[in-house]
Amino acid sequence: MPGWQTIERYFEDYTIGERDIERRRTVDQADTTMFAGLTLDFHPAHIDESFAAPRYGGRLVHGMLTFSIVTGLCVEYNMKAISYGYEKVRFPAPVRAGDTIVAWSEVMELTPHRKPEIGLVTKKYTGQNQDGVTVFSCLHILAIDRKAST
Amino acid sequence: MPGWQTIERYFEDYTIGERDIERRRTVDQADTTMFAGLTLDFHPAHIDESFAAPRYGGRLVHGMLTFSIVTGLCVEYNMKAISYGYEKVRFPAPVRAGDTIVAWSEVMELTPHRKPEIGLVTKKYTGQNQDGVTVFSCLHILAIDRKAST
Amino acid sequence: MPGWQTIERYFEDYTIGERDIERRRTVDQADTTMFAGLTLDFHPAHIDESFAAPRYGGRLVHGMLTFSIVTGLCVEYNMKAISYGYEKVRFPAPVRAGDTIVAWSEVMELTPHRKPEIGLVTKKYTGQNQDGVTVFSCLHILAIDRKAST
Amino acid sequence: MPGWQTIERYFEDYTIGERDIERRRTVDQADTTMFAGLTLDFHPAHIDESFAAPRYGGRLVHGMLTFSIVTGLCVEYNMKAISYGYEKVRFPAPVRAGDTIVAWSEVMELTPHRKPEIGLVTKKYTGQNQDGVTVFSCLHILAIDRKAST
Amino acid sequence: MPGWQTIERYFEDYTIGERDIERRRTVDQADTTMFAGLTLDFHPAHIDESFAAPRYGGRLVHGMLTFSIVTGLCVEYNMKAISYGYEKVRFPAPVRAGDTIVAWSEVMELTPHRKPEIGLVTKKYTGQNQDGVTVFSCLHILAIDRKAST
Amino acid sequence: MPGWQTIERYFEDYTIGERDIERRRTVDQADTTMFAGLTLDFHPAHIDESFAAPRYGGRLVHGMLTFSIVTGLCVEYNMKAISYGYEKVRFPAPVRAGDTIVAWSEVMELTPHRKPEIGLVTKKYTGQNQDGVTVFSCLHILAIDRKAST
Repeated sequence: MPGWQTIERYFEDYTIGERDIERRRTVDQADTTMFAGLTLDFHPAHIDESFAAPRYGGRLVHGMLTFSIVTGLCVEYNMKAISYGYEKVRFPAPVRAGDTIVAWSEVMELTPHRKPEIGLVTKKYTGQNQDGVTVFSCLHILAIDRKAST
Repeated sequence: MPGWQTIERYFEDYTIGERDIERRRTVDQADTTMFAGLTLDFHPAHIDESFAAPRYGGRLVHGMLTFSIVTGLCVEYNMKAISYGYEKVRFPAPVRAGDTIVAWSEVMELTPHRKPEIGLVTKKYTGQNQDGVTVFSCLHILAIDRKAST
Repeated sequence: MPGWQTIERYFEDYTIGERDIERRRTVDQADTTMFAGLTLDFHPAHIDESFAAPRYGGRLVHGMLTFSIVTGLCVEYNMKAISYGYEKVRFPAPVRAGDTIVAWSEVMELTPHRKPEIGLVTKKYTGQNQDGVTVFSCLHILAIDRKAST
Repeated sequence: MPGWQTIERYFEDYTIGERDIERRRTVDQADTTMFAGLTLDFHPAHIDESFAAPRYGGRLVHGMLTFSIVTGLCVEYNMKAISYGYEKVRFPAPVRAGDTIVAWSEVMELTPHRKPEIGLVTKKYTGQNQDGVTVFSCLHILAIDRKAST
Repeated sequence: MPGWQTIERYFEDYTIGERDIERRRTVDQADTTMFAGLTLDFHPAHIDESFAAPRYGGRLVHGMLTFSIVTGLCVEYNMKAISYGYEKVRFPAPVRAGDTIVAWSEVMELTPHRKPEIGLVTKKYTGQNQDGVTVFSCLHILAIDRKAST
Repeated sequence: MPGWQTIERYFEDYTIGERDIERRRTVDQADTTMFAGLTLDFHPAHIDESFAAPRYGGRLVHGMLTFSIVTGLCVEYNMKAISYGYEKVRFPAPVRAGDTIVAWSEVMELTPHRKPEIGLVTKKYTGQNQDGVTVFSCLHILAIDRKAST
């Protein structure tokens, strides 16, 4: 029951409108710096306080790190699913070091696929900061096994 | 000339079809582990060799890490641009620890925006592994300042 | 349902003999090196291959890292519990870089406490490697809220 | 003389009551975040400021990280010793990001072992914060070679 | 044009007095802690706030980390060059967590080498903090291919 | 006696020719990748296996990381000393991921300083790989307090 665990959910087990619980994680400058090192993205907005402070009130978290954290907070360890892709990835407001990201997912669409053994589940991921401002949203499309029809 | 540097490019300075140079980075298991720690995504495909080896021939790199690295390899430190969003993010083939990601960008579309002071530049990012297999692609939409019209 | 989540379980909700699912994580040399850096424990068994290879067949994972990973794999995000302490911490066999740790917990004892509002739950944590050899065991004592008695 | 170095001390070389020097290390939030990533322990007390601030005045350091740091500060690079186990591990007070841990060890007990070639040395490890509050204590049992008896 | 890229510059392409652009990076305590872990340099000036605060107003960045960052900010990805060595490495003022390092290079000397196919280019690297105080300087000697003479 | 500890040694306590013990540390690719992230030095020799393998038999460790590790292995936690600078820094042979660096220091010179309260101690640091090939050497100049003369 505790901690995290893998599950097995089929395409037929999903319902439009189902919403997962919220999860939270605070992002610090050290996370941004580590992410810059992993990705080689050293835009001064992320690593140069003298550049970022007058423009944004401090160094910004990479959009891709916010995205990655939201995805990590929303991921379902479903052994029957693989990631198909993302659409409509948007960053409506900046994230700064020290902000706490709150994220949740909601099932938006269930689509058959030309391969009869899978279906596509489209979830919307939303990320907000500690003040309730939406800083991220996207659609995550998952290819999920269907139950054998016989 | 050497290393990286910021630039100032306006919407008018981009041309459809222009393609940036390729850049490369090898991804190791330690990068995946670090990324799992940053994002809390501990899917067994990424952190459990006994799970991943029989299924995939070894632990897989997170799709979001591949995405983040491709983005880092393609990023333009353009002081006149901000990231608007991503579309059509796809992961056509898996990436394993030890693979070398090769990435480049190409300008696909130039679109006016309802705000007259900016335009949208849509770039396609492509990532391949060392064997020339495409493992990632997406469209990155950037909002870029227009030159003052007077 | 997916991922991890917090729960609220009271002392009265635990049963002797209940056993949590197994969770797994592969430990690599980079994890050991990172742990050495965090803790300042640079015993040559952990960081010097020329020392460790002839003695152990390779660098060893810190016992404390094995312990920490087993604890992380077994942790219950129970909002009603705090960690009281550990007993009988043992390391019956070495762990080497590349080993996969399999861990689970089992409730061993339920003990009243002099403070009537809490009780002590003693869990046994066991860690094995990919070959089924036990490499770690301990007792973790948790102080857990009791349900209000009225 | 400087830095750290390995030593060779036999069971017979230890004396009850001998106390090692104090060593210190400040723990920051980045250490906690790194540790959470290594161990998969993402309890909100450690990673969610909005959860931790009202309850504890800020995010807490994992007990296991405090334990690991105290152990690292107290470790003796004794080529004649191996770690046998820990007992009476206790966390009497919380540690917060920014606290400085002060740790030392003291030999408490010297016990023969059924194997005549080793003896057990029991050390007490104590960890305090910068205000002299004890935040950690345990007994560390080491199996240490005896001098050849001929 | 954007980001970083490799170049091919021969000995003959360098001119005494040419100066590269400035680049900047803020150094945080997490960087120092990571560096301490990588290098095993746990001098209390770097890791013990109770030691460092009364003496220096806070923990100091390792001189070698300042040096490494300045080098990283100044490095030219020149496929025709290899690092020959450094001279006159000096640390005229301390760097503290939170400081922003500004670095640039300038070509000081062009020297023939006994091997006719290479020449030595000596660059001066300078690092300052956000207040314009010089915290680092050195000479970096690079062995660079000459153009074939025929 | 165990682990590391600070000392107080005055200029007068050093002798030309005194040599410290050897210390060792294996360097892995993850260390190089981490170092690249800390310093922004992403030369393809360090991060692109497809570039490095045909040229060097694998990715190279940054010269500055070798230098930093040698310095960390040789550092004396002498409360009476500060680092004055380095001279004659040389990298006679490459270091690859997996190599074990062996390092030691030797006092080469004792020089008075115009400030009567300090003297300069020049140590030579040498780094070799596991095959006894010298991969690094430098002179480290330390400014060390003199004993009060009265």
